[in-house]
Amino acid sequence: MYHHVDGRDGIVELLRERVASAIDPGTLELTPWDEALEAWARSYRAAFAAHPRAIPLLMTSPVRAPRVLAQYERAVSLLLAAGFDRALIMPLVIALENLVLGSALDLAAPETMWELTEHAPTPHLAEALAAVGEGRADRAFEVGLTAFMNHARVVREDG
Amino acid sequence: MYHHVDGRDGIVELLRERVASAIDPGTLELTPWDEALEAWARSYRAAFAAHPRAIPLLMTSPVRAPRVLAQYERAVSLLLAAGFDRALIMPLVIALENLVLGSALDLAAPETMWELTEHAPTPHLAEALAAVGEGRADRAFEVGLTAFMNHARVVREDG
Repeated sequence: MYHHVDGRDGIVELLRERVASAIDPGTLELTPWDEALEAWARSYRAAFAAHPRAIPLLMTSPVRAPRVLAQYERAVSLLLAAGFDRALIMPLVIALENLVLGSALDLAAPETMWELTEHAPTPHLAEALAAVGEGRADRAFEVGLTAFMNHARVVREDG
Repeated sequence: MYHHVDGRDGIVELLRERVASAIDPGTLELTPWDEALEAWARSYRAAFAAHPRAIPLLMTSPVRAPRVLAQYERAVSLLLAAGFDRALIMPLVIALENLVLGSALDLAAPETMWELTEHAPTPHLAEALAAVGEGRADRAFEVGLTAFMNHARVVREDG
Protein backbone atom coordinates (compact mmCIF):
# COMPACT_ATOMS: atom_id res chain seq x y z
CA MET A 1 0.00 0.00 0.00
CA TYR A 2 1.17 3.51 -0.73
CA HIS A 3 -0.70 6.09 1.28
CA HIS A 4 1.97 8.53 2.35
CA VAL A 5 2.30 11.37 -0.15
CA ASP A 6 5.56 13.23 0.30
CA GLY A 7 5.88 16.29 -1.93
CA ARG A 8 6.56 16.08 -5.66
CA ASP A 9 8.04 12.58 -5.53
CA GLY A 10 4.97 11.31 -3.73
CA ILE A 11 2.66 12.81 -6.33
CA VAL A 12 4.67 11.21 -9.15
CA GLU A 13 4.34 7.85 -7.41
CA LEU A 14 0.59 8.26 -6.97
CA LEU A 15 0.39 8.94 -10.71
CA ARG A 16 2.57 5.90 -11.41
CA GLU A 17 0.35 3.65 -9.28
CA ARG A 18 -2.75 5.03 -10.97
CA VAL A 19 -1.44 4.43 -14.50
CA ALA A 20 0.11 1.04 -13.69
CA SER A 21 -3.08 -0.15 -11.94
CA ALA A 22 -4.56 -0.69 -15.42
CA ILE A 23 -1.89 -3.28 -16.25
CA ASP A 24 -3.50 -6.71 -15.84
CA PRO A 25 -1.43 -8.43 -13.10
CA GLY A 26 -2.78 -11.79 -14.25
CA THR A 27 -0.66 -11.56 -17.41
CA LEU A 28 2.51 -12.33 -15.43
CA GLU A 29 0.89 -15.51 -14.05
CA LEU A 30 0.38 -17.07 -17.49
CA THR A 31 2.45 -20.00 -18.69
CA PRO A 32 4.79 -20.47 -20.41
CA TRP A 33 7.00 -17.48 -19.58
CA ASP A 34 6.98 -16.06 -23.12
CA GLU A 35 3.19 -15.95 -23.25
CA ALA A 36 3.23 -14.14 -19.88
CA LEU A 37 5.83 -11.59 -21.00
CA GLU A 38 4.07 -10.85 -24.28
CA ALA A 39 0.67 -10.44 -22.61
CA TRP A 40 2.21 -8.17 -19.96
CA ALA A 41 3.77 -6.01 -22.70
CA ARG A 42 0.43 -5.60 -24.47
CA SER A 43 -1.39 -4.72 -21.26
CA TYR A 44 1.45 -2.35 -20.22
CA ARG A 45 1.24 -0.52 -23.57
CA ALA A 46 -2.55 -0.15 -23.33
CA ALA A 47 -2.33 1.18 -19.77
CA PHE A 48 0.25 3.85 -20.63
CA ALA A 49 -1.32 4.73 -23.99
CA ALA A 50 -4.31 5.99 -21.97
CA HIS A 51 -1.98 8.54 -20.28
CA PRO A 52 0.59 9.55 -22.91
CA ARG A 53 1.48 12.83 -21.20
CA ALA A 54 2.54 10.97 -18.06
CA ILE A 55 5.03 8.77 -19.92
CA PRO A 56 8.06 11.14 -20.03
CA LEU A 57 7.63 12.05 -16.35
CA LEU A 58 7.27 8.45 -15.20
CA MET A 59 10.17 7.28 -17.39
CA THR A 60 12.55 9.80 -15.87
CA SER A 61 11.59 9.59 -12.17
CA PRO A 62 12.79 6.79 -9.87
CA VAL A 63 10.28 4.02 -9.18
CA ARG A 64 9.29 3.94 -5.50
CA ALA A 65 5.64 2.88 -5.43
CA PRO A 66 5.55 -0.50 -3.63
CA ARG A 67 2.81 -1.92 -5.84
CA VAL A 68 4.80 -1.08 -8.96
CA LEU A 69 8.01 -2.46 -7.46
CA ALA A 70 6.04 -5.64 -6.72
CA GLN A 71 5.15 -5.91 -10.41
CA TYR A 72 8.83 -5.66 -11.39
CA GLU A 73 9.59 -8.31 -8.76
CA ARG A 74 7.03 -10.58 -10.41
CA ALA A 75 8.45 -9.97 -13.91
CA VAL A 76 12.04 -10.59 -12.77
CA SER A 77 10.98 -13.74 -10.87
CA LEU A 78 9.28 -15.04 -14.02
CA LEU A 79 12.48 -14.62 -16.07
CA LEU A 80 14.70 -16.08 -13.35
CA ALA A 81 12.42 -19.13 -13.13
CA ALA A 82 12.52 -19.43 -16.94
CA GLY A 83 16.30 -19.80 -16.73
CA PHE A 84 17.58 -16.44 -17.97
CA ASP A 85 21.06 -15.30 -16.99
CA ARG A 86 20.45 -12.86 -14.12
CA ALA A 87 22.71 -10.19 -15.66
CA LEU A 88 20.51 -10.16 -18.76
CA ILE A 89 17.16 -9.80 -17.03
CA MET A 90 17.09 -6.04 -16.41
CA PRO A 91 18.45 -5.20 -19.90
CA LEU A 92 15.67 -7.37 -21.35
CA VAL A 93 12.96 -5.84 -19.15
CA ILE A 94 14.16 -2.29 -19.89
CA ALA A 95 14.44 -2.96 -23.63
CA LEU A 96 10.86 -4.23 -23.60
CA GLU A 97 9.72 -1.15 -21.64
CA ASN A 98 11.47 1.18 -24.11
CA LEU A 99 9.59 -0.46 -26.96
CA VAL A 100 6.29 -0.51 -25.05
CA LEU A 101 6.51 3.13 -23.93
CA GLY A 102 7.80 4.40 -27.27
CA SER A 103 4.85 2.61 -28.89
CA ALA A 104 2.43 4.00 -26.30
CA LEU A 105 3.61 7.54 -27.13
CA ASP A 106 3.27 6.75 -30.83
CA LEU A 107 -0.41 5.89 -30.26
CA ALA A 108 -0.90 9.55 -29.30
CA ALA A 109 0.49 10.66 -32.68
CA PRO A 110 -1.79 11.66 -35.54
CA GLU A 111 -2.71 8.87 -37.99
CA THR A 112 -1.20 11.04 -40.74
CA MET A 113 2.20 11.44 -39.16
CA TRP A 114 4.12 12.39 -42.34
CA GLU A 115 2.77 15.41 -44.20
CA LEU A 116 4.35 15.17 -47.62
CA THR A 117 4.85 18.27 -49.73
CA GLU A 118 5.25 18.87 -53.44
CA HIS A 119 8.09 21.28 -52.72
CA ALA A 120 10.33 18.45 -51.55
CA PRO A 121 9.19 15.23 -53.24
CA THR A 122 9.61 11.99 -51.29
CA PRO A 123 8.25 9.36 -53.71
CA HIS A 124 9.53 6.28 -51.87
CA LEU A 125 8.19 7.50 -48.54
CA ALA A 126 4.83 8.14 -50.23
CA GLU A 127 4.87 4.61 -51.67
CA ALA A 128 5.74 3.00 -48.32
CA LEU A 129 3.04 5.02 -46.52
CA ALA A 130 0.42 4.07 -49.11
CA ALA A 131 1.38 0.40 -48.76
CA VAL A 132 1.02 0.26 -44.98
CA GLY A 133 -2.51 1.66 -44.88
CA GLU A 134 -4.31 2.21 -41.58
CA GLY A 135 -3.26 1.08 -38.14
CA ARG A 136 0.43 1.86 -38.70
CA ALA A 137 1.06 2.28 -34.96
CA ASP A 138 -0.34 -1.15 -34.07
CA ARG A 139 1.51 -2.82 -36.91
CA ALA A 140 4.78 -1.22 -35.83
CA PHE A 141 4.24 -2.40 -32.26
CA GLU A 142 3.62 -5.95 -33.48
CA VAL A 143 6.88 -5.88 -35.47
CA GLY A 144 8.83 -4.63 -32.47
CA LEU A 145 7.22 -7.09 -30.07
CA THR A 146 7.79 -10.05 -32.40
CA ALA A 147 11.44 -9.05 -32.78
CA PHE A 148 11.83 -8.77 -29.01
CA MET A 149 10.12 -12.07 -28.17
CA ASN A 150 12.10 -14.02 -30.78
CA HIS A 151 15.32 -12.57 -29.41
CA ALA A 152 14.35 -13.37 -25.81
CA ARG A 153 13.69 -17.01 -26.77
CA VAL A 154 17.10 -17.29 -28.46
CA VAL A 155 18.94 -15.61 -25.56
CA ARG A 156 17.29 -17.95 -23.05
CA GLU A 157 18.32 -21.06 -24.99
CA ASP A 158 21.90 -19.80 -25.30
CA GLY A 159 22.12 -18.95 -21.58
CA MET B 1 15.24 24.42 -46.80
CA TYR B 2 12.65 25.38 -44.21
CA HIS B 3 12.56 29.09 -43.56
CA HIS B 4 8.88 29.85 -43.23
CA VAL B 5 7.75 29.66 -39.61
CA ASP B 6 3.98 29.40 -39.36
CA GLY B 7 2.71 29.54 -35.77
CA ARG B 8 3.00 26.64 -33.35
CA ASP B 9 3.41 23.99 -36.07
CA GLY B 10 6.27 25.95 -37.60
CA ILE B 11 8.04 26.22 -34.25
CA VAL B 12 7.69 22.49 -33.68
CA GLU B 13 9.26 21.86 -37.10
CA LEU B 14 12.15 24.21 -36.38
CA LEU B 15 12.76 22.23 -33.19
CA ARG B 16 12.52 18.96 -35.15
CA GLU B 17 15.07 20.17 -37.71
CA ARG B 18 17.37 21.35 -34.94
CA VAL B 19 17.28 18.04 -33.06
CA ALA B 20 17.44 15.88 -36.21
CA SER B 21 20.37 17.90 -37.61
CA ALA B 22 22.59 16.02 -35.15
CA ILE B 23 21.76 12.68 -36.82
CA ASP B 24 24.71 11.78 -39.03
CA PRO B 25 23.23 11.60 -42.56
CA GLY B 26 26.24 9.57 -43.70
CA THR B 27 24.97 6.59 -41.70
CA LEU B 28 22.26 5.91 -44.28
CA GLU B 29 24.90 5.79 -47.04
CA LEU B 30 26.80 2.87 -45.49
CA THR B 31 26.71 -0.61 -46.99
CA PRO B 32 25.29 -3.15 -46.53
CA TRP B 33 21.78 -1.96 -45.60
CA ASP B 34 21.84 -3.47 -42.11
CA GLU B 35 25.02 -1.66 -41.17
CA ALA B 36 23.43 1.58 -42.41
CA LEU B 37 20.21 1.04 -40.46
CA GLU B 38 22.01 0.15 -37.24
CA ALA B 39 24.37 3.15 -37.47
CA TRP B 40 21.41 5.43 -38.21
CA ALA B 41 19.59 4.10 -35.12
CA ARG B 42 22.58 4.80 -32.89
CA SER B 43 23.05 8.32 -34.25
CA TYR B 44 19.28 8.97 -34.03
CA ARG B 45 19.26 7.90 -30.34
CA ALA B 46 22.24 10.11 -29.49
CA ALA B 47 20.68 13.13 -31.24
CA PHE B 48 17.37 12.83 -29.39
CA ALA B 49 18.96 11.87 -26.06
CA ALA B 50 20.46 15.37 -26.06
CA HIS B 51 16.91 16.81 -26.09
CA PRO B 52 14.76 14.40 -24.04
CA ARG B 53 12.07 16.98 -23.29
CA ALA B 54 11.44 17.48 -27.00
CA ILE B 55 10.77 13.78 -27.62
CA PRO B 56 7.07 13.59 -26.59
CA LEU B 57 6.25 16.75 -28.54
CA LEU B 58 8.07 15.62 -31.69
CA MET B 59 6.61 12.10 -31.48
CA THR B 60 3.04 13.40 -31.40
CA SER B 61 3.22 16.19 -34.01
CA PRO B 62 3.09 15.52 -37.77
CA VAL B 63 6.44 15.62 -39.57
CA ARG B 64 6.57 18.49 -42.08
CA ALA B 65 10.17 19.70 -42.08
CA PRO B 66 11.53 18.99 -45.60
CA ARG B 67 15.00 18.05 -44.37
CA VAL B 68 13.52 15.52 -41.98
CA LEU B 69 11.16 14.15 -44.62
CA ALA B 70 14.23 13.77 -46.86
CA GLN B 71 15.87 11.62 -44.20
CA TYR B 72 12.82 9.33 -44.09
CA GLU B 73 12.93 9.18 -47.88
CA ARG B 74 16.54 8.02 -47.67
CA ALA B 75 15.77 5.37 -45.03
CA VAL B 76 12.77 4.03 -47.00
CA SER B 77 14.83 3.99 -50.23
CA LEU B 78 17.53 2.01 -48.46
CA LEU B 79 15.04 -0.66 -47.37
CA LEU B 80 13.31 -0.78 -50.75
CA ALA B 81 16.68 -1.27 -52.45
CA ALA B 82 17.52 -4.01 -49.92
CA GLY B 83 14.45 -5.91 -51.10
CA PHE B 84 11.98 -5.43 -48.25
CA ASP B 85 8.26 -5.84 -48.92
CA ARG B 86 7.00 -2.25 -49.24
CA ALA B 87 4.10 -2.85 -46.84
CA LEU B 88 6.59 -3.80 -44.12
CA ILE B 89 8.91 -0.83 -44.46
CA MET B 90 7.02 1.77 -42.40
CA PRO B 91 6.15 -0.71 -39.60
CA LEU B 92 9.86 -1.56 -39.43
CA VAL B 93 10.98 2.08 -39.45
CA ILE B 94 8.39 3.04 -36.81
CA ALA B 95 9.24 0.04 -34.60
CA LEU B 96 12.90 1.09 -34.75
CA GLU B 97 11.96 4.69 -33.89
CA ASN B 98 9.84 3.54 -30.92
CA LEU B 99 12.82 1.63 -29.57
CA VAL B 100 15.26 4.47 -30.31
CA LEU B 101 13.08 7.18 -28.76
CA GLY B 102 12.05 5.07 -25.77
CA SER B 103 15.75 4.41 -25.17
CA ALA B 104 16.61 8.09 -25.63
CA LEU B 105 14.05 9.00 -22.93
CA ASP B 106 15.48 6.27 -20.71
CA LEU B 107 18.91 7.94 -20.95
CA ALA B 108 17.36 10.91 -19.12
CA ALA B 109 16.32 8.63 -16.23
CA PRO B 110 18.35 8.42 -13.02
CA GLU B 111 21.00 5.67 -12.91
CA THR B 112 19.23 4.35 -9.80
CA MET B 113 15.81 3.96 -11.37
CA TRP B 114 14.38 1.48 -8.85
CA GLU B 115 14.45 2.63 -5.23
CA LEU B 116 13.92 -0.53 -3.23
CA THR B 117 12.42 -0.39 0.23
CA GLU B 118 12.55 -2.69 3.24
CA HIS B 119 8.81 -2.23 3.71
CA ALA B 120 8.04 -4.18 0.55
CA PRO B 121 10.92 -6.57 -0.13
CA THR B 122 11.75 -7.34 -3.76
CA PRO B 123 14.67 -9.78 -3.48
CA HIS B 124 14.70 -10.95 -7.10
CA LEU B 125 14.57 -7.40 -8.43
CA ALA B 126 17.46 -6.51 -6.10
CA GLU B 127 19.43 -9.50 -7.41
CA ALA B 128 18.79 -8.62 -11.06
CA LEU B 129 19.73 -4.97 -10.48
CA ALA B 130 22.96 -5.94 -8.70
CA ALA B 131 23.85 -8.29 -11.58
CA VAL B 132 23.43 -5.68 -14.33
CA GLY B 133 25.74 -3.11 -12.75
CA GLU B 134 26.33 0.27 -14.39
CA GLY B 135 25.27 1.39 -17.83
CA ARG B 136 21.88 -0.34 -17.69
CA ALA B 137 20.37 2.07 -20.24
CA ASP B 138 23.06 1.37 -22.84
CA ARG B 139 22.87 -2.37 -22.28
CA ALA B 140 19.09 -2.33 -22.67
CA PHE B 141 19.40 -0.38 -25.92
CA GLU B 142 21.90 -2.92 -27.26
CA VAL B 143 19.50 -5.77 -26.44
CA GLY B 144 16.63 -4.03 -28.19
CA LEU B 145 18.70 -3.05 -31.22
CA THR B 146 20.14 -6.57 -31.61
CA ALA B 147 16.62 -8.02 -31.43
CA PHE B 148 15.38 -5.57 -34.03
CA MET B 149 18.27 -6.05 -36.47
CA ASN B 150 18.07 -9.85 -36.27
CA HIS B 151 14.34 -9.70 -36.97
CA ALA B 152 14.82 -7.30 -39.90
CA ARG B 153 17.35 -9.70 -41.48
CA VAL B 154 14.93 -12.63 -41.14
CA VAL B 155 11.98 -10.65 -42.50
CA ARG B 156 13.99 -9.53 -45.51
CA GLU B 157 15.03 -13.08 -46.39
CA ASP B 158 11.47 -14.31 -46.05
CA GLY B 159 10.15 -11.45 -48.22
